[in-house]
Amino acid sequence: MSKANGVPHDVTDINLASTGADMIEWADASMPVLATIRRRFETERPLDGIRVSACLHVTTETANLARTLAAGGAEVSVCASNPLSTQDEVAASLVTDHGIPVFARNGEDNDTYYGHIGTVLDAKPQITMDDGADLVGTIHSSREELIAGIIGGTEETTTGVIRLRAMQKAGVLEYPIMAVNEADTKHFFDNRYGTGQSTIDGILRATNLLLAGKNFVVCGYGWCGRGLASRARGMGANVITTEIDATRALEALMDGFRVMPIAEAAEIGDIFVTVTGNKNVIDKSHFLTMKSGAVLANSGHFDVEINIAELERLSTSRRKIRPMLEEFVMPDGRKVYLLGEGRLINLASAEGHPASVMDMSFANQALAAEYMVKNADSLEKQVYPVPQEIDQEIARLKLDSMGIKVDSLTEEQAAYLGAWQEGT
Amino acid sequence: MSKANGVPHDVTDINLASTGADMIEWADASMPVLATIRRRFETERPLDGIRVSACLHVTTETANLARTLAAGGAEVSVCASNPLSTQDEVAASLVTDHGIPVFARNGEDNDTYYGHIGTVLDAKPQITMDDGADLVGTIHSSREELIAGIIGGTEETTTGVIRLRAMQKAGVLEYPIMAVNEADTKHFFDNRYGTGQSTIDGILRATNLLLAGKNFVVCGYGWCGRGLASRARGMGANVITTEIDATRALEALMDGFRVMPIAEAAEIGDIFVTVTGNKNVIDKSHFLTMKSGAVLANSGHFDVEINIAELERLSTSRRKIRPMLEEFVMPDGRKVYLLGEGRLINLASAEGHPASVMDMSFANQALAAEYMVKNADSLEKQVYPVPQEIDQEIARLKLDSMGIKVDSLTEEQAAYLGAWQEGT
Amino acid sequence: MSKANGVPHDVTDINLASTGADMIEWADASMPVLATIRRRFETERPLDGIRVSACLHVTTETANLARTLAAGGAEVSVCASNPLSTQDEVAASLVTDHGIPVFARNGEDNDTYYGHIGTVLDAKPQITMDDGADLVGTIHSSREELIAGIIGGTEETTTGVIRLRAMQKAGVLEYPIMAVNEADTKHFFDNRYGTGQSTIDGILRATNLLLAGKNFVVCGYGWCGRGLASRARGMGANVITTEIDATRALEALMDGFRVMPIAEAAEIGDIFVTVTGNKNVIDKSHFLTMKSGAVLANSGHFDVEINIAELERLSTSRRKIRPMLEEFVMPDGRKVYLLGEGRLINLASAEGHPASVMDMSFANQALAAEYMVKNADSLEKQVYPVPQEIDQEIARLKLDSMGIKVDSLTEEQAAYLGAWQEGT
Amino acid sequence: MSKANGVPHDVTDINLASTGADMIEWADASMPVLATIRRRFETERPLDGIRVSACLHVTTETANLARTLAAGGAEVSVCASNPLSTQDEVAASLVTDHGIPVFARNGEDNDTYYGHIGTVLDAKPQITMDDGADLVGTIHSSREELIAGIIGGTEETTTGVIRLRAMQKAGVLEYPIMAVNEADTKHFFDNRYGTGQSTIDGILRATNLLLAGKNFVVCGYGWCGRGLASRARGMGANVITTEIDATRALEALMDGFRVMPIAEAAEIGDIFVTVTGNKNVIDKSHFLTMKSGAVLANSGHFDVEINIAELERLSTSRRKIRPMLEEFVMPDGRKVYLLGEGRLINLASAEGHPASVMDMSFANQALAAEYMVKNADSLEKQVYPVPQEIDQEIARLKLDSMGIKVDSLTEEQAAYLGAWQEGT
Repeated sequence: MSKANGVPHDVTDINLASTGADMIEWADASMPVLATIRRRFETERPLDGIRVSACLHVTTETANLARTLAAGGAEVSVCASNPLSTQDEVAASLVTDHGIPVFARNGEDNDTYYGHIGTVLDAKPQITMDDGADLVGTIHSSREELIAGIIGGTEETTTGVIRLRAMQKAGVLEYPIMAVNEADTKHFFDNRYGTGQSTIDGILRATNLLLAGKNFVVCGYGWCGRGLASRARGMGANVITTEIDATRALEALMDGFRVMPIAEAAEIGDIFVTVTGNKNVIDKSHFLTMKSGAVLANSGHFDVEINIAELERLSTSRRKIRPMLEEFVMPDGRKVYLLGEGRLINLASAEGHPASVMDMSFANQALAAEYMVKNADSLEKQVYPVPQEIDQEIARLKLDSMGIKVDSLTEEQAAYLGAWQEGT
Repeated sequence: MSKANGVPHDVTDINLASTGADMIEWADASMPVLATIRRRFETERPLDGIRVSACLHVTTETANLARTLAAGGAEVSVCASNPLSTQDEVAASLVTDHGIPVFARNGEDNDTYYGHIGTVLDAKPQITMDDGADLVGTIHSSREELIAGIIGGTEETTTGVIRLRAMQKAGVLEYPIMAVNEADTKHFFDNRYGTGQSTIDGILRATNLLLAGKNFVVCGYGWCGRGLASRARGMGANVITTEIDATRALEALMDGFRVMPIAEAAEIGDIFVTVTGNKNVIDKSHFLTMKSGAVLANSGHFDVEINIAELERLSTSRRKIRPMLEEFVMPDGRKVYLLGEGRLINLASAEGHPASVMDMSFANQALAAEYMVKNADSLEKQVYPVPQEIDQEIARLKLDSMGIKVDSLTEEQAAYLGAWQEGT
Repeated sequence: MSKANGVPHDVTDINLASTGADMIEWADASMPVLATIRRRFETERPLDGIRVSACLHVTTETANLARTLAAGGAEVSVCASNPLSTQDEVAASLVTDHGIPVFARNGEDNDTYYGHIGTVLDAKPQITMDDGADLVGTIHSSREELIAGIIGGTEETTTGVIRLRAMQKAGVLEYPIMAVNEADTKHFFDNRYGTGQSTIDGILRATNLLLAGKNFVVCGYGWCGRGLASRARGMGANVITTEIDATRALEALMDGFRVMPIAEAAEIGDIFVTVTGNKNVIDKSHFLTMKSGAVLANSGHFDVEINIAELERLSTSRRKIRPMLEEFVMPDGRKVYLLGEGRLINLASAEGHPASVMDMSFANQALAAEYMVKNADSLEKQVYPVPQEIDQEIARLKLDSMGIKVDSLTEEQAAYLGAWQEGT
Repeated sequence: MSKANGVPHDVTDINLASTGADMIEWADASMPVLATIRRRFETERPLDGIRVSACLHVTTETANLARTLAAGGAEVSVCASNPLSTQDEVAASLVTDHGIPVFARNGEDNDTYYGHIGTVLDAKPQITMDDGADLVGTIHSSREELIAGIIGGTEETTTGVIRLRAMQKAGVLEYPIMAVNEADTKHFFDNRYGTGQSTIDGILRATNLLLAGKNFVVCGYGWCGRGLASRARGMGANVITTEIDATRALEALMDGFRVMPIAEAAEIGDIFVTVTGNKNVIDKSHFLTMKSGAVLANSGHFDVEINIAELERLSTSRRKIRPMLEEFVMPDGRKVYLLGEGRLINLASAEGHPASVMDMSFANQALAAEYMVKNADSLEKQVYPVPQEIDQEIARLKLDSMGIKVDSLTEEQAAYLGAWQEGT
């Protein structure tokens, strides 16, 4: 383990710190809610002396979260929640400029990855922060000695929360968790506005195609799908949606989009994006009927939504023709293009969710940590939603930061609503 | 009580039947889900001999619901849920052409109104259908002898459901109720697409104003407000929203609308529409700062959202200048215009929700009735949601009627989702 | 010829004046440009003693134009440019409240119509105002003795301007004409925003159909078609356009609409609107393939765009089921619905262009009259465009009336543009 | 001068050819019109033996134009129309794979740049192709001996056309020119859809900012401004427009955007983009009142629209914090961000117009060259528009390539329109 100014770390190149500092600062300019919380934390020190181990994507936004926790008095250490998402410049700056131990190298192998998780757990965390439940999983399976010292944990993702609820149900969850993912100020904004814009961004960077006039097929009309369909239409595309849920399909229709089975869409689509959370949504039978020139991308969490193995099997050749663009040639000469190897296109070919969106997600992280420390005595071994007051507080801070004011109920109105709710 | 071909009734003019028949038929053309259910009911007769008393707005859409229930074998009788909403032609046609007893006259006085409720209860209903809980209320307060014979009831509105839940909580609800209002295929479509379009329609009929380029203030960004804001933007208006909820305000902002307190919006708005469910949302202090020419309308359930009494008090004159448009002149010469006396503008000045939307609401009514008859033995004295299967079935039938197909999960996909839900 | 307070007239009922006054006032509130011009005219009296004969639709907007001309000192007399468009209340108010001779009765027969034209010409006009070139036509064919006294004329419509240019080309035009139709502040706004909104309005009043999710076919992607397509999409419809011009078709496509031949659209459309200026755009072969329930409307100038005669021939029955809605039943049972007998749906079933749009059109009329009087000596016997200064002045006044400010060039910028235009 | 396989050239690195070939092929997939023309040219050889010198941005799209001309039999040589826009890989591939002499190096100095122009002129062109009139300018000023051999030239840009018309007016233009810029299929699509999308793309790559909910100020509501405003709204931004022309300002307003002077917009804007063609549109007084965090970009042709010199003078520091993003700090601590040094943001930070748009622009180039060769005898020394048949043909080919069909007039319809145009 190296040290820089006495801070232990394992980063790719500590000399990248200055570039990392610029990047962190630029993200910070779009994270006013976290900055407000940070200023309060500096004064109130609600996490004074609390050991926090965070296993998150090591990005500029995470850096600003780590700074905030540290400002609140926490002793933070950070490792990566994915071997490929670490921004090495950011890792270096966190160590050098903020004195925060970071153990993450972009492209690290599996052993290193799990080694780093072990290292942050060696700090004996009182609070764990997860993006996919790796810390919780490791602790429950092989580091049970830590459990006694843990106040609670937070979880950022749908996937993680599902796993944790399953643990709770099975009676094996050993400490309280706050499901940050389920806060309104997290999933409403992140999925619709974050995924919507960044998916378009990823497609443009990968292809430089004109979207206007294209048949743009959005597979799945959940929150992500809605955001994406709306943005694609905003770029002049003619949007087609596919669904398995009849109510959502009706909503898509009444929102002005075409709805049809993927088998039908396959024949007329120019660009296809999957955002379903499901597997092989675009499959062999669809590749067989696509127009030459069809472009495929995925913006769902895992790279299983497009059946790439089958696509390759069907093709006589596969080659990269732009950094994030591969061409597959079919025996009949048709060409199908795959973006970013079917991985989340907004991360593979763009920069993921804009900082402005992560501002709210990570404000939930910071305030959830504070809440758990304050309420340590009363929390049970279960998965909690983020308290509504925190959610509303974050929305209010975000509006404030944009200079936007909203109304509040007059006394008369509050009374009216109260009476009405009682049915009088 | 009059009779026509042996059918008892109290309608305004039985000779209007033929016009009413045309109107009912035109609505029917947009109600394919109900028509599909009606065809099945004709064969299966699931309500055979069941006495149904319905207290609903006596409109073309209700007529098609009543026909459907009758086709299922029910003995239906109908009275009005509001003294002003009865379409007299429709009432006449229901009696003459469909042999359904109707007791409803547009503009009937209070005594007649409650007398009609009594008359339909005299039929000793086994199923009650309410739009505002008047039947349930009357039965529980003064016709308790009927309770023993009742299988269950349905309720169409938010207001009604709130009252019924309060009764359940207080332990006084004496028979099972299905909350039709809470079905997805009801409130998602009704509020967004129904209110959105019909409010614009009402404003245009009342004013013939050009919406393009106007500052159009939408008070409240709930489902109705979202629908309306989207439609107003679609007509070229520049939409401003006001809210008391910070998260909704943020959503409005990220949907591209301006957000500000009503006090600020009051000074720059050209057209104001309230859809909040609250009281005095536009109040004295706002009238004082509005531009001359400001137009006010309400599309919330009750006519309390604009403080009309205060508006009149502030004005030196009030006069009607078009059928649904009144001018109020302020002492400083400014003119403020009120549409439809502050009542629901889509009913006052247009024709309410299009039949296509009511198709789904009333399909829920019909299937809820069938469900209760089938499950009479197992229902408790409580408020039930519409079963999800019914909701999904209605969405599917609606899509079918539009010739729209959706996908279904492959076995592999179902397995994948199942596994994922278990957190593996 | 009757007289009221010494004002000669031929109107349907002079007692309707007070209702007419309210209607005129409501329109006036949306015609601030004309009002500004009227105030200036009152002071400057640029038309002092000038005899103006106007043959225009006798509507609230025309009333405000007539008031403006009179305020400028003109001696105005008015007849109708169409036997069916006269608002009798407005005619009565113009006579009674504004002392303007009006000769127009809604529903007048052909002889009366031409008799009224003769009457306003008896006033020996110095300026003629036309909406379809009837005054100019009559003068050139049978009232040549008036020509010597005429300064010039104005023309409101495309149709009229085409006829007048043909006359000029043939060398038979005997006095100068200003083509109001060709002003930017006329045709840009009138066609896109006026026709767009009022066509939607007409369809809703005629049908009360939900537009969301419907296939809405717009035949013709000219200015009217663009306006309509944009508004239909704004109401949640899925818009399909048909065109004969390839460049316009490409624009429609890149604006996000579907483009296909009318024969293909016929099979999938729910609502069809023609705005082409052409004949039999929807024809026999299309009726044969339409879905049952298809709704047809026309928003082009003449009622020839839908081949109604052929539709009737194909049908086994034709009947009216709502005021502006007729049902045609095909031998195979399919039903096709025609709105407003194929006449301009925004006039047949709604109230035509909103006053706010006519404000600019009629401001062009008033300023064109002033310009011709001022420049009487230098005008040739030809068709003139409205001078650009007038066009810009009207746009500026309109913006002022809405409280909107725009920038002006700095000296440096003007110099830069000048230099650039010289290619340096 | 180097040679590769006998082809003279001056490119940065001939070994980049294979990457260049991939890039050219990817663009080609979006240039079906040019490909169709190329296939016809291969058969018909309309440019057989014609010497064409082209001074254009050496990009993938230009490569496909050059291939097309060569396929038609032309002897093409190419130099750059801007020292910074050359894609060195493309230059290498044109030489190696297509045998076309290219003289262009990205970043070449002024002497080299003009030397390269001289080299392509040494080929004694019969047709010149310009993007900014550099070839025409050089020939007229110092290579007059070439004039006798020249059939004609084409010009791609507004700027070039203005210069050439000035020359014609001054009587010094010595050979015919076709103004490709003025074709409908060029400027309608290029400006609206090309600039609209690629400007958004450039801003996202430079900043990764969330656009939803931002005040996005578009300076100038010409064709570029309309495209950009529409796309920004499509991304959820709240768009504000500024204008100097009152009619355009009214259109912006009725399209649903806010309109205000730049001085007012300066105070509330989050992102500013200039597309005016003018100078110092955002100037000192505006920098002084901007919110901290304001982002500035230019998408107009020259980098003079934002007064960068003044911005620097006002600032206490200027530093680069991301590749295309500079921070300027004001004495009061406010930070203003400038993208791409104020150069065209879609070229500086993205990839310029998508190939699909250039397809039509360059099809005009190819067909204009063919037209001039065919009509060499009848062309005068003046600037010609692209013949309408060519424009329509390109639109038709583009639609064909997308599988879109349009209607054509029936005989009856053509007759009707003809009659109408004669005023009957």
